[in-house]
Amino acid sequence: MERIKRVIEWLKDNDHSMAFIQDKTSIFYLTGFYCDPHERLVSLLLFPEAEPCLICPNMETSLVKEAGWTGEILGYSDIEDPWLLVRQAVEKRNAVLTSCIVEAPRLTYARVQALQDAFPAIKLIDGEPFLMELRKQKSAKELTTLKEAAALADYGVEVGVQAIQEGRSEIEILALIEYELKRKGVRDMSFGTLVLSGDQSANPHGNPGQRTIKKGDFVLFDLGVVLDGYCSDITRTVAFHHVTDQQQDIYETVRKAQQAALDACRPGVEIRTLDQIARTIITEAGYGDYFPHRIGHGLGMEVHELPSLNETNTDRLQKGMVFTIEPGIYLPSIGGVRIEDDVVITEDGYQTLTNYPKNLQIIT
Amino acid sequence: MERIKRVIEWLKDNDHSMAFIQDKTSIFYLTGFYCDPHERLVSLLLFPEAEPCLICPNMETSLVKEAGWTGEILGYSDIEDPWLLVRQAVEKRNAVLTSCIVEAPRLTYARVQALQDAFPAIKLIDGEPFLMELRKQKSAKELTTLKEAAALADYGVEVGVQAIQEGRSEIEILALIEYELKRKGVRDMSFGTLVLSGDQSANPHGNPGQRTIKKGDFVLFDLGVVLDGYCSDITRTVAFHHVTDQQQDIYETVRKAQQAALDACRPGVEIRTLDQIARTIITEAGYGDYFPHRIGHGLGMEVHELPSLNETNTDRLQKGMVFTIEPGIYLPSIGGVRIEDDVVITEDGYQTLTNYPKNLQIIT
Repeated sequence: MERIKRVIEWLKDNDHSMAFIQDKTSIFYLTGFYCDPHERLVSLLLFPEAEPCLICPNMETSLVKEAGWTGEILGYSDIEDPWLLVRQAVEKRNAVLTSCIVEAPRLTYARVQALQDAFPAIKLIDGEPFLMELRKQKSAKELTTLKEAAALADYGVEVGVQAIQEGRSEIEILALIEYELKRKGVRDMSFGTLVLSGDQSANPHGNPGQRTIKKGDFVLFDLGVVLDGYCSDITRTVAFHHVTDQQQDIYETVRKAQQAALDACRPGVEIRTLDQIARTIITEAGYGDYFPHRIGHGLGMEVHELPSLNETNTDRLQKGMVFTIEPGIYLPSIGGVRIEDDVVITEDGYQTLTNYPKNLQIIT
Repeated sequence: MERIKRVIEWLKDNDHSMAFIQDKTSIFYLTGFYCDPHERLVSLLLFPEAEPCLICPNMETSLVKEAGWTGEILGYSDIEDPWLLVRQAVEKRNAVLTSCIVEAPRLTYARVQALQDAFPAIKLIDGEPFLMELRKQKSAKELTTLKEAAALADYGVEVGVQAIQEGRSEIEILALIEYELKRKGVRDMSFGTLVLSGDQSANPHGNPGQRTIKKGDFVLFDLGVVLDGYCSDITRTVAFHHVTDQQQDIYETVRKAQQAALDACRPGVEIRTLDQIARTIITEAGYGDYFPHRIGHGLGMEVHELPSLNETNTDRLQKGMVFTIEPGIYLPSIGGVRIEDDVVITEDGYQTLTNYPKNLQIIT
């Protein structure tokens, strides 16, 4: 309950009367209890002085306890109104609500209205930046899970590379990757797996399809899994049969840019530096117009979280931050190369969580 | 643009000054343009008198046109503020905003604040019930897609049933089902596929896992695919090697209940009747306490939409409604049976979209 304590301390420091948390990821992060309740309300109420309370459908209460929650639980049936429970929890604590922390980008207007109906005098304040800031530095336990998720992503690429054959379709290879991962117990991919070949690999809107592998193609894999609530995200690009000098040049440029950005990773470095280092290398090689995205994004319970590794972010790297480093060059009609690793900032540098080889592989 | 016209008529009839639509499913329904923009804003502005406008990231504008959108498009880059475009669109039309239709359960508080900042005098009104009502009756084109999606769900069950072997795990069978569906070009399942065996089949919280198939098990499959934006959802239960008299009794009771509910499907019938008919049969057979859920749910672009087929819904079935009929009996430690079809209401009755056989199969 260390994380909940930090939220409560923050409520105290800022004179907020309550936090109303209802996003499934935030609840999992703060309580260890995960469920996707769809339209039903699961909410965590935190107060500066009084005991926390978790409100959920009756059928979830036993799972809440199994997850280690020792605070109050208020369960409700499908014919009860959960907002009455929210009101009761507040009244029981004699809490006078003036301001209430909510997750503005995760709370629907319908729920805002329910909250305002229950507490007409309440002022809603966005707590999302604070909660996201908390999630930025990963604990040892989170890192262990992220490493396991990354190892499964490595394995997914391995399966994909081994499946490359002339005439085999992108979708066939994709299906095989997910099959092997699901057999290992993976329930969910962290996003729709990409297997893109030939000119498709240069298409930012590319969807894997019936295109079949041809000699001279780049084949780009971008995939990740969700393991115990944490995501991985890897990209590797290989070539089939042979490459042209230009393809080799693109590949080596991306690889050099990625390595240079990695080499700059250590606590204290400004985040924008990483993008700038990679972008400079790609631009000097003449491909600056073909690297249209930021160099990476934070990674954790969501596949895109803080920090955003763009050209303008002046925040500094801190120990325990986890993010991707993924420069790319996309030449229309020739093909695209992207190389992406998951990275954690350590005491004095970095460690990659994904470890599939990055030398140019020409599959024959 | 027939659907947009109906929204505009409704705006006129109710003196609303604008509709601000931003959910990806609603936008797809109204315009034919689908994209998942994550945190970026894609919004459709509709006015009672003026021309509609679609606001989206620059990189999406060509896809909007490809989807057949002929109205105004305002694109924005990652460093521009899309809310300025919303304001400009309104100003250009000399629209005086008093009330604005929004999707209350789909619009975040962060966006509510942005909308209220842009138009301080605006009153937000929930248009979700109207939009959901529109979606309830499917067009001929939607039905064609739903039928194709249902046929793929049938195929998924077929693959699963053929994969049953003593000692093979639930997760292995699940992986194989999804592999074969993905090979056919399916990008997304409509929800996490369930393969549950033995006592697990009676667990409403059941997650497919390493449990292996044993003689005398029920094996329950619940799965569906998303095809061109439309979902299917089928459940079938088979037995492995042999069944007890009690298992047979449960199976035949569920089958009888499902058929009786289907037989009652035709325009004009009160929706609650379907649940009541099935529930009566199950209760009279002595299993009333073991059928803990409603008999079905609407199906379309989302796997759960209107109508809700519960015991109390007094709305009446209409031609073109599509929903599931899925009674079940779950006996702890013995196993569960659920049989689910996707159904469309026709002129004078119903048609099932899913067609995998429903007689009790004992796999040997």
